[in-house]
Amino acid sequence: MPKRTDRLTSDIGWSTPDQINVRGMDLPSEILGHMNLGDMAFLLLAHRQPSAEESTVFNAILVALVEHGITPSAMAARITYMGAPESLQAAVAAGLCGLGSVFVGSMEGAAKMLYDVLPPDQLGTGADLEVIAKQTVADFRARAAIVPGLGHPLHKPVDPRTPRLFEIAAQNGKSGEYIALIELIQKEAEAASGKALPINATGAIGAICCEFGFPWEIVRGFGVMARSIGLVGHILEESTNPIAFELWQRTEEEILEASGPSAHGAAK
Amino acid sequence: MPKRTDRLTSDIGWSTPDQINVRGMDLPSEILGHMNLGDMAFLLLAHRQPSAEESTVFNAILVALVEHGITPSAMAARITYMGAPESLQAAVAAGLCGLGSVFVGSMEGAAKMLYDVLPPDQLGTGADLEVIAKQTVADFRARAAIVPGLGHPLHKPVDPRTPRLFEIAAQNGKSGEYIALIELIQKEAEAASGKALPINATGAIGAICCEFGFPWEIVRGFGVMARSIGLVGHILEESTNPIAFELWQRTEEEILEASGPSAHGAAK
Amino acid sequence: MPKRTDRLTSDIGWSTPDQINVRGMDLPSEILGHMNLGDMAFLLLAHRQPSAEESTVFNAILVALVEHGITPSAMAARITYMGAPESLQAAVAAGLCGLGSVFVGSMEGAAKMLYDVLPPDQLGTGADLEVIAKQTVADFRARAAIVPGLGHPLHKPVDPRTPRLFEIAAQNGKSGEYIALIELIQKEAEAASGKALPINATGAIGAICCEFGFPWEIVRGFGVMARSIGLVGHILEESTNPIAFELWQRTEEEILEASGPSAHGAAK
Amino acid sequence: MPKRTDRLTSDIGWSTPDQINVRGMDLPSEILGHMNLGDMAFLLLAHRQPSAEESTVFNAILVALVEHGITPSAMAARITYMGAPESLQAAVAAGLCGLGSVFVGSMEGAAKMLYDVLPPDQLGTGADLEVIAKQTVADFRARAAIVPGLGHPLHKPVDPRTPRLFEIAAQNGKSGEYIALIELIQKEAEAASGKALPINATGAIGAICCEFGFPWEIVRGFGVMARSIGLVGHILEESTNPIAFELWQRTEEEILEASGPSAHGAAK
Repeated sequence: MPKRTDRLTSDIGWSTPDQINVRGMDLPSEILGHMNLGDMAFLLLAHRQPSAEESTVFNAILVALVEHGITPSAMAARITYMGAPESLQAAVAAGLCGLGSVFVGSMEGAAKMLYDVLPPDQLGTGADLEVIAKQTVADFRARAAIVPGLGHPLHKPVDPRTPRLFEIAAQNGKSGEYIALIELIQKEAEAASGKALPINATGAIGAICCEFGFPWEIVRGFGVMARSIGLVGHILEESTNPIAFELWQRTEEEILEASGPSAHGAAK
Repeated sequence: MPKRTDRLTSDIGWSTPDQINVRGMDLPSEILGHMNLGDMAFLLLAHRQPSAEESTVFNAILVALVEHGITPSAMAARITYMGAPESLQAAVAAGLCGLGSVFVGSMEGAAKMLYDVLPPDQLGTGADLEVIAKQTVADFRARAAIVPGLGHPLHKPVDPRTPRLFEIAAQNGKSGEYIALIELIQKEAEAASGKALPINATGAIGAICCEFGFPWEIVRGFGVMARSIGLVGHILEESTNPIAFELWQRTEEEILEASGPSAHGAAK
Repeated sequence: MPKRTDRLTSDIGWSTPDQINVRGMDLPSEILGHMNLGDMAFLLLAHRQPSAEESTVFNAILVALVEHGITPSAMAARITYMGAPESLQAAVAAGLCGLGSVFVGSMEGAAKMLYDVLPPDQLGTGADLEVIAKQTVADFRARAAIVPGLGHPLHKPVDPRTPRLFEIAAQNGKSGEYIALIELIQKEAEAASGKALPINATGAIGAICCEFGFPWEIVRGFGVMARSIGLVGHILEESTNPIAFELWQRTEEEILEASGPSAHGAAK
Repeated sequence: MPKRTDRLTSDIGWSTPDQINVRGMDLPSEILGHMNLGDMAFLLLAHRQPSAEESTVFNAILVALVEHGITPSAMAARITYMGAPESLQAAVAAGLCGLGSVFVGSMEGAAKMLYDVLPPDQLGTGADLEVIAKQTVADFRARAAIVPGLGHPLHKPVDPRTPRLFEIAAQNGKSGEYIALIELIQKEAEAASGKALPINATGAIGAICCEFGFPWEIVRGFGVMARSIGLVGHILEESTNPIAFELWQRTEEEILEASGPSAHGAAK
C-alpha cells in the first residue's frame, strides 16, 4: 500500500488555455503530424521520442500484437457487444479483462527470464551466453516448468513472425545479447526435449523489449494497448457479420441436450 | 437480435502453420516493418492500407486522442490498479468503461451531425454550406441542444489542437466540405450565442472522420483504442508516482467529516 | 455534466473506530444476523429496511434474476476466466459489461412503459386499465415496436416464473394495478398479434418493481447485482468443468475452414 | 490450459418450455419465495440448499461484505458512471475490476493460511491449536510477512464486525477449530508485535469460510458478488448526489498547479 503524499503530481503532461504538453513536448506543434501512434506510445512509456530506428522496431512489436484471429478476448468482446451494442467501450473492456497470466503472461515471462539470467548490468561484459542458455533450460526442466516464449500449437517449426521481427530489430540496431540468448535457449530447449520449440511471437517480443531495456512489468501493457485496436476491429466486424448469437445458441442447445432433463432421466 | 447463421465466418484474417494474414496482407512480409500502429488500425477499420497522406492524417487523429491529462478514465484506471496491481489489463478495462456518451459522445455526435446535414451523396454537388450551417445552428438552438464539437472549458478562444489538425488534413488532401462546414457552423454558433465556441478536438476529429468517409458509429472506437494507450501510460506512472491512495484517503476523510456521526448529531 | 459542489457528502454510511453504520442502521447489531442479502440490497436502494412481506417479494425478484443458464454474459465471463484465472473479479466484470440494452433492457423497458401509461399519481383513482392496455398495445403496434416484457423464445405459452412471482406478490400485498395492467396488456397483445406472448420474467419483475414504486432507472441495477452472483457460480464451474477452451478451438477451426486460405483460393 | 473435451456440459441448471431447474431444484416452486438471495448464492456455490443455521451465517458473511463506504472500488464505479451513465453495468464492472490482491486478498489469504496450518483432515483429531498458532506467527514473522486477516487502520482495538460475526457463527453451530485458531493467532501476533492487531472482518470471514469448508479459492467470489450490490448503491447515490465531477476537477487543478508549466519554469 503506498504511503500518503502531501501533493498530487503527474509528469505526463499539462494543459493551459493555449498549450497542451505531453512529456515535455508541445502536442500541436511537435507531436501531431510528426509522430505516429506507436511513437506516441513510446513517448508515454519511455518518456522521450523514439529515434527513427526505434520507431520502426517499436511499431513492429505493437503491430504484431494487434490481431490474432478469433482469440478468447475477441470472442468475449463480440459476445459482450451483442448484449450492449450501445457501449462499444465496454465490449473492448470485456475483451481486455482476459489478457492475464495465460495469454499475455508468456511475453512478460520471456522478458523476465532473460533479465533474470542476464541482468542489464552484465551486458557487454562478455557473459558466456551458451553457458547461460544451458543453465536456464536445465533450471526450467528441473522444476518441470515451461520455458516462456517457446513453442506454438500451430506455427511449427517456425513462427513466421519471429524471424521477421528479429530481422527488423537487426536492421535497426536493436539485435544484441538478449536476442542471441533466446535463440540459444531455444536450441538448447529443442535439444533437451527433442521437440520443435519455435521462438513464438511473444518470446521474440519479450527479447526485443529487453533490447530496448523496458522493464518486464511494462510488457503486458504493450499487449493491452495493441489488442484494444484489434478488438475494435472485431467489434466492427461483429456489427455486420455477427458470430456471437450463433455461438450462444449452439452452446445453449448442446448443453441442454447433454445436461438437461433427459440427461438426468427426468420425465419431460 | 441477429438471425442465426449456418456458418461462422470472419474476413479479418487467418493463420496457417507458416502464414499469418490480416485483411488480405501477409503480416510478416507486408505489414511488419512497413506499417506503423496507426496504419494497422486503419487496415482493420477501412480494410485497406492507407496512402501516405491518409497515414499522416489518421495517425494524427489517433495521437490527438491518446492523452488528456487526469481524465475521469485515467482516475478510474489508477484507482483500480491500486487494488489489483497484478491485473494491469483490468485497470485499463476499468478506465475504458467510462468512455461513454458524456466524453466520447461529442466526437461521434459531431460526425453524425455533419453527415445528417450534408449526406455524403451531396458532396461535390454545390451544396450551400452557409445555408446549411445557419439552419443547423438554428435547429440546435430551437431545441436548446448543444452543438456537438464546439466549446471547451479550458481551451478558449481556440483549442490549439484544432488548427493544427485542420492544417495536417489540408496538407494531405483531406480538407473538404465537412471541415468547411464545421467552421461555418462554429462562426454561426458564436454569432448566435455571443460566446466563444471554439471547435474542440472532438469536433475537429469528427469532421476529419467525415472527410475520410468513416461511418459515425465507428468514431467512438478511435477514442477507445487511442485512450487505451494513454491509460497504460497513466498506470505506469501510478506504479511509481501514485495518486490513487491519497485521493481515496482524502475522500474518505472529507465524507466522514461531512456525513459521519458528528454530522448526524450522533454521540461519538 | 454535474455542477461543482463545495463539499463531498454521502448518506450511505460511515465508520468510526468502534461503529459501522449503513443507511442509519448499526451494521453489527442491527443488520448482521438480522437481514439477509436481499434485504441489504433493499436497504441500500430504498434507504430503509424492508418489511417481512417486502423482503419475501424483493428477494424473489432478485433470486429470479441470478441464473439463466449459458447466457452470453456467462460465456463472456467463462472465456475471460480462461485467460486470467488469477483475476476472478475481472471475469465477473467482463460478464457484467454485456448486461445492456438487449438483455436487461426489456426489464427496465417494461417498468418504464407501465409508469408512462399509468403514472404513480393516478394509482387508486379508478383509471380504466382495459382502455389503457388497448391504447398501449395500439401505440406500440402503430410504431411497429415490440412491447417490452412480453414473449419468450423458449418458455411458451407461459413463462413458469411469471405466475409464481405474481403469486408471491399477491400473497405479500404487492399485487396492484401495475400487475393487473401488464396482464391486460398481454391479453391485448396476444389478441392483436394472434401469437402466444407470455409475460416473461423480465416483464413480471418490471411490473413488480412498479408495485414497489422503484424508479425504472434503478431496475437495471437489480439485474446487475443478481447476475454477478450467477456469474461467480459459472466461473466456479468453469474451474472444474471448462467449456471455454473447447468453444474457442471449435470457433477458430470453423472460421479457418470457412474463411481461411482455401476459402480464398490461396495456395497453402 | 484445459484439455479439449468432446462435449460441453453444465450442471448448473437447465430449462424446458415449462420448467427451469437450478442445481436440481425447480426454480418456480422450490426456490422462488422459499430462498433468499444469500441462499441462492449458497445453492450455486455449495450445490445444495443451506440449512436454516447455515443460511443465517452465510447471509451474515455476504451482508458484511456489501458496503464499506467510499472504497477505491466505489470511487472507480462512480467516476466511470459520470462518463457513461447509460451503462450502469459497465460502472459496476469497473468497480469490480479493482477487487484484486490488495483489498480482497486478505480474505482469501486468511482462509488459505488456516487451511495450510490446519488441513481439514486434521479437524477433530486433537491438534494443539496453541502450538500451531505460535508456529504460524513465528513463520510469518521470520519472513517479515503480514499475517492476513489481522489489523485495521481504523477499527482498533476491535473491528466491531468480528465479535458479532463470531457470535452469529457460534449461535448457529459454525464456530469450531478455525475460529478458535485465528483467535489464538491474533493473541500470539499481538504479543509478538506489541501492537493492537484486531481480527478484521476479512479475517473473521476467512475463518468462517473454513468452518463451512469452502475452498479458499472461492472466497474472493463472495466479496465480488456482495460488493456488486454495494456498487449499485453507490451508483444510485452518484446519480443524485454526485462526487465524481468534483473529485475530477480538484485533481486536475491540483496537478496542474503542482506539475504544470509554472512548476516547470515554463513561460506561460
